[in-house]
Amino acid sequence: KRPRDYGIKIGVLPTGTLNAITDVPGVKVGQVTLKQGDNIRTGVTAILPHDGNLFQQKCPAAIYIGNGFGKLAGYSQVEELGTLETPVVLTNTLSVPTAADALIDYTLRQPGNEQVRSVNPVVGETNDGGLNDIRGRHVTRQHVLDALQKATTGPVEEGNIGAGTGTVCFGFKGGIGTASRKLPAPLGGYTVGVLVQTNFGGVLQIDGVPVGEELGRYSFKETLDRSGDGSCMMVVLTDAPLDARNLKRLARRAFMGMAKTGGIAANGSGDYVIAISTAYRIPHESKATVDALKLLRNDNVSPLFMAAIEATEEAIINSLFAAQTLKGEQGRVVEALPVEKVLEIMKQYDKK
Amino acid sequence: KRPRDYGIKIGVLPTGTLNAITDVPGVKVGQVTLKQGDNIRTGVTAILPHDGNLFQQKCPAAIYIGNGFGKLAGYSQVEELGTLETPVVLTNTLSVPTAADALIDYTLRQPGNEQVRSVNPVVGETNDGGLNDIRGRHVTRQHVLDALQKATTGPVEEGNIGAGTGTVCFGFKGGIGTASRKLPAPLGGYTVGVLVQTNFGGVLQIDGVPVGEELGRYSFKETLDRSGDGSCMMVVLTDAPLDARNLKRLARRAFMGMAKTGGIAANGSGDYVIAISTAYRIPHESKATVDALKLLRNDNVSPLFMAAIEATEEAIINSLFAAQTLKGEQGRVVEALPVEKVLEIMKQYDKK
Amino acid sequence: KRPRDYGIKIGVLPTGTLNAITDVPGVKVGQVTLKQGDNIRTGVTAILPHDGNLFQQKCPAAIYIGNGFGKLAGYSQVEELGTLETPVVLTNTLSVPTAADALIDYTLRQPGNEQVRSVNPVVGETNDGGLNDIRGRHVTRQHVLDALQKATTGPVEEGNIGAGTGTVCFGFKGGIGTASRKLPAPLGGYTVGVLVQTNFGGVLQIDGVPVGEELGRYSFKETLDRSGDGSCMMVVLTDAPLDARNLKRLARRAFMGMAKTGGIAANGSGDYVIAISTAYRIPHESKATVDALKLLRNDNVSPLFMAAIEATEEAIINSLFAAQTLKGEQGRVVEALPVEKVLEIMKQYDKK
Amino acid sequence: KRPRDYGIKIGVLPTGTLNAITDVPGVKVGQVTLKQGDNIRTGVTAILPHDGNLFQQKCPAAIYIGNGFGKLAGYSQVEELGTLETPVVLTNTLSVPTAADALIDYTLRQPGNEQVRSVNPVVGETNDGGLNDIRGRHVTRQHVLDALQKATTGPVEEGNIGAGTGTVCFGFKGGIGTASRKLPAPLGGYTVGVLVQTNFGGVLQIDGVPVGEELGRYSFKETLDRSGDGSCMMVVLTDAPLDARNLKRLARRAFMGMAKTGGIAANGSGDYVIAISTAYRIPHESKATVDALKLLRNDNVSPLFMAAIEATEEAIINSLFAAQTLKGEQGRVVEALPVEKVLEIMKQYDKK
Repeated sequence: KRPRDYGIKIGVLPTGTLNAITDVPGVKVGQVTLKQGDNIRTGVTAILPHDGNLFQQKCPAAIYIGNGFGKLAGYSQVEELGTLETPVVLTNTLSVPTAADALIDYTLRQPGNEQVRSVNPVVGETNDGGLNDIRGRHVTRQHVLDALQKATTGPVEEGNIGAGTGTVCFGFKGGIGTASRKLPAPLGGYTVGVLVQTNFGGVLQIDGVPVGEELGRYSFKETLDRSGDGSCMMVVLTDAPLDARNLKRLARRAFMGMAKTGGIAANGSGDYVIAISTAYRIPHESKATVDALKLLRNDNVSPLFMAAIEATEEAIINSLFAAQTLKGEQGRVVEALPVEKVLEIMKQYDKK
Repeated sequence: KRPRDYGIKIGVLPTGTLNAITDVPGVKVGQVTLKQGDNIRTGVTAILPHDGNLFQQKCPAAIYIGNGFGKLAGYSQVEELGTLETPVVLTNTLSVPTAADALIDYTLRQPGNEQVRSVNPVVGETNDGGLNDIRGRHVTRQHVLDALQKATTGPVEEGNIGAGTGTVCFGFKGGIGTASRKLPAPLGGYTVGVLVQTNFGGVLQIDGVPVGEELGRYSFKETLDRSGDGSCMMVVLTDAPLDARNLKRLARRAFMGMAKTGGIAANGSGDYVIAISTAYRIPHESKATVDALKLLRNDNVSPLFMAAIEATEEAIINSLFAAQTLKGEQGRVVEALPVEKVLEIMKQYDKK
Repeated sequence: KRPRDYGIKIGVLPTGTLNAITDVPGVKVGQVTLKQGDNIRTGVTAILPHDGNLFQQKCPAAIYIGNGFGKLAGYSQVEELGTLETPVVLTNTLSVPTAADALIDYTLRQPGNEQVRSVNPVVGETNDGGLNDIRGRHVTRQHVLDALQKATTGPVEEGNIGAGTGTVCFGFKGGIGTASRKLPAPLGGYTVGVLVQTNFGGVLQIDGVPVGEELGRYSFKETLDRSGDGSCMMVVLTDAPLDARNLKRLARRAFMGMAKTGGIAANGSGDYVIAISTAYRIPHESKATVDALKLLRNDNVSPLFMAAIEATEEAIINSLFAAQTLKGEQGRVVEALPVEKVLEIMKQYDKK
Repeated sequence: KRPRDYGIKIGVLPTGTLNAITDVPGVKVGQVTLKQGDNIRTGVTAILPHDGNLFQQKCPAAIYIGNGFGKLAGYSQVEELGTLETPVVLTNTLSVPTAADALIDYTLRQPGNEQVRSVNPVVGETNDGGLNDIRGRHVTRQHVLDALQKATTGPVEEGNIGAGTGTVCFGFKGGIGTASRKLPAPLGGYTVGVLVQTNFGGVLQIDGVPVGEELGRYSFKETLDRSGDGSCMMVVLTDAPLDARNLKRLARRAFMGMAKTGGIAANGSGDYVIAISTAYRIPHESKATVDALKLLRNDNVSPLFMAAIEATEEAIINSLFAAQTLKGEQGRVVEALPVEKVLEIMKQYDKK
């Protein structure tokens, strides 16, 4: 059961049908989980903004860097050109090159890309080295290609899956989470979907309730521990017709949503947001010298900002509710968020 | 009474003695309030990092732009050189040039600055045009010089004062607020102080409690209103020995604190953070070619990040509790946060 | 006579009719020169992208900061929203607040702006304190309003005029310069116009010829002098339909043009580029939620980049040829570029 | 013979002994060239700032993005933390993941790094797909490890070698180039060394002489060709005690040096500068909470800026002089710069 099923309603805007990134029409997610032996606890999560040849039909996109202690691949070209030309892949820190290589494979092989000689793979990561034998770099190109291949619309599995298999968040087992908001018609009617890979720390708050404090577990409680380290990857999709500039602004709001869960963007946390619009496509080649676009005016973006904040906050909390206790590297066990106890706390704070 | 006097304790870290920006040793604040006739409702708030000649003894500093729809003066030089050479002045949007001019006056006149031919005044602003006859530009250079002159250490007045005289926050009367955190010795023992000028919107949360929803007042409740517009200016001081790079990181965390109050950084909100260290000074001129510095290592900044988040959140809430109902421009009345009602809500949510 | 009249042809692209920023249709320039008494040597240069109400009909724009040791006003809002809502005014460093105030006056007073309560004045500056009594701040709001009022299409006066009255460049008298390029039809047919206020140092090269070396005058010839300080303001206008992202890229190329003259962007040089498109307008208010735009594709911007580089290089050289020997502050004399001698040098290097 | 051997002296500052990046004490370069069969024309160039364990003893560093159409790995962490923790590797666009993986291998295996679970590999690239079967991705991890292994101090081979094996510059064969400047004692006495991988276009100028025009070969001569595409990677090393902020400023000046060769940073050119100081090290772990540093004051950086501009300009020209005619992919031949003819042109322009 997800938090909403327990009556925990984050924010004021309505969710999409699935309360998932896949509420944005056409968006697909594919995940491959590596849970092998004592200490392989990692995986791959792939997000495809649309069904076609993404290199030939690029999406407007932007990347916001909340805290840059991370190894995300593909930043500068997205920043310069304002477009995304590969799916987004999430994995563990030391497997970024493998995933990038796989995205190159994927792109070079796609029909229509026979002449492509340059590809900008976008790969996000968090460090699952607490539970996973990260130095072993167990993710292969095939795992990544499988995740891309398996991608579907519809519900998205959360928790210990894909790139969230081995992550830790607020001292509890983290993972993949997703959520969405659908703006009411007077606010534009657009959908904003978010998917997160949660692996960071701070002082957990669930819908404003100080769960971290109540459970006695939060960063720097006594000493300068490393519990704040990790990272949070946030992917934001929308069908609103935003250009790269406004997508970057939207991305920044996802970071605000992370803040609302009690995240502190600690020194060692690589916090990145990738924001993508599916509303229109920028063809790789065109006989036209101009692209005819209809772009949302600045005046109309604020409800989308609110949606991104809410959906990110909820996606993170969703990841914690879905994740399960996991034993991994060196026998270390990271426990799931104690949901029953959390619900009691929520009730005590009049949020059930 | 401030929120803490009612038992509202935001965050997990201890406050400084005054729970104010002036807990950072040497920091002074001076305010001038213009409340005249029917519709002059504005003012000036000045923050002085130290007592000396700031142009000759510059402070390391950084400015983070959360949402750049604003008119802050002085950004690029602080970004390029990493230093602040004038006090920080806050005022209303259309009085930024006047305040900048006054800071130039102030600096040119200071003994020792007889040869100075270049000054980078740093002025922040929010738009108080809802209550104030902002088009009248009633702030004069003398008002700004008075604020600088009056600056003192010690408690800082909050609410409808200085640059917060005419501001509106979450639909209620906003204003000046301040707070601080003093890190326990194992976390470094440093102090972080924050002062805010609150004039923005979103969905108000007080210590996580959904006060905005409970009171039925929040942005975009029904339509795309302009309630999110405004701005939030945040000034962060610390005695931790940070360089400009880490000060910019610290500044970003203040923005996260704003997010925790329910701010959404709406399109029309100019949200800026100015972060300054008092730990050391960069002399304007020196016979030495190098500056010998002791700079906090990246590994040790995270507790400061947490402190900046908490202090900013609390400073914003403090501003709301202190502000009082005000009538201004065109007879418009903006009511104070209904504190009694808020306390009931807080109690209902088990936070009194 | 301008360098081209002497046969000095910078670059490979053709100029516009006037070889001036005003070759971009609709662009107007107005200048006011203050040359009074012994030591008032300053002024104002205003650039108007179009004839209408710029606040109501904003232009897409971007600002690139080559070296941020300067006091340009208006950066963050242009960066955030991608639009310019006032004319651009250039003046001296300490008169930026006055000029900003005048732009607010200008905007508030324009018919149709009666309800405007927020204005983002864009003011660039260089420090003419070597020849001008800059501490006296002799520029008044009226001077700025006069420059705006006087603005016309057609030829632009260069040299010791307007904001270039008291500037120094490569050790010689600098000033205002302008140039343009008109792309051949196969490259798009667009015009790029540049206006510069030159006040910086380095090792002067004219069309690649080492004039600074030949004349024995360049920065750091023997010691760490301050000859590199100053600043260069560059304003780039184009009728190509670029959005803010591509305008920022265009702006960066103007900085490359400055590099080609031998500028080094010394520590003390505030080098900024403001790039504006006149191809379309973004209305301040609109009933539509989207703007329908035709934007030049990334693939087609490179010739514009080349045009911006060339026009900026030439505009700087034009400023030097036009400027005349001037005596000012404390009797200091800055000599004009010795044109006859320079032409001999050019001839020696086979460029006459 | 290098251009200087022909009497072509770029700039006014003296070179280091070798006129190479390795003039900065301790810096090593290693290169592996892949020239196999008809169409494998690529390679690897590695730059090591010091001899030790770079992960444990990080160098202050910064990356400047001139034009972000490229796939450089490692940007955001360098930007956030201001340090470099792996050697810099240059290769072709589609081999970035392989090189990044190899740098992870290299780092994980180094004695003392047994507990390392996070590595930020820095890899630059240009696209050699005109001469090289880039889609074949022929660079292996072992090639990269070999380049790292082979790295030495002393002279650096230029031209068709390492990562410059298959590159094209201004329509001629490009490659690896290097140069340096040693500041006279009154300017600080520091050394700045630059290494470039040249693969871009524009209108070639050699020491200001319009060689591209004279040879009738430059970008957009008639149509919107793709000759400007490619990329330029620039690596700047210095023993001056700069922090990340001033290293970023230094990096920006290298981009100005590129401009002086006639580069235009065309849309398709990924132009990046990585700047590194060897003057001090930031230990990965330390019992101290602060680092005691002596940092060059802003006032003293300008001669370094000039040095970076000059050395970059010369390194690019050096690459062109060293590169040789090469036949590759699909039988395409790219001719070397016709040195004899160029020297005649130089002579004609009074520069021999």
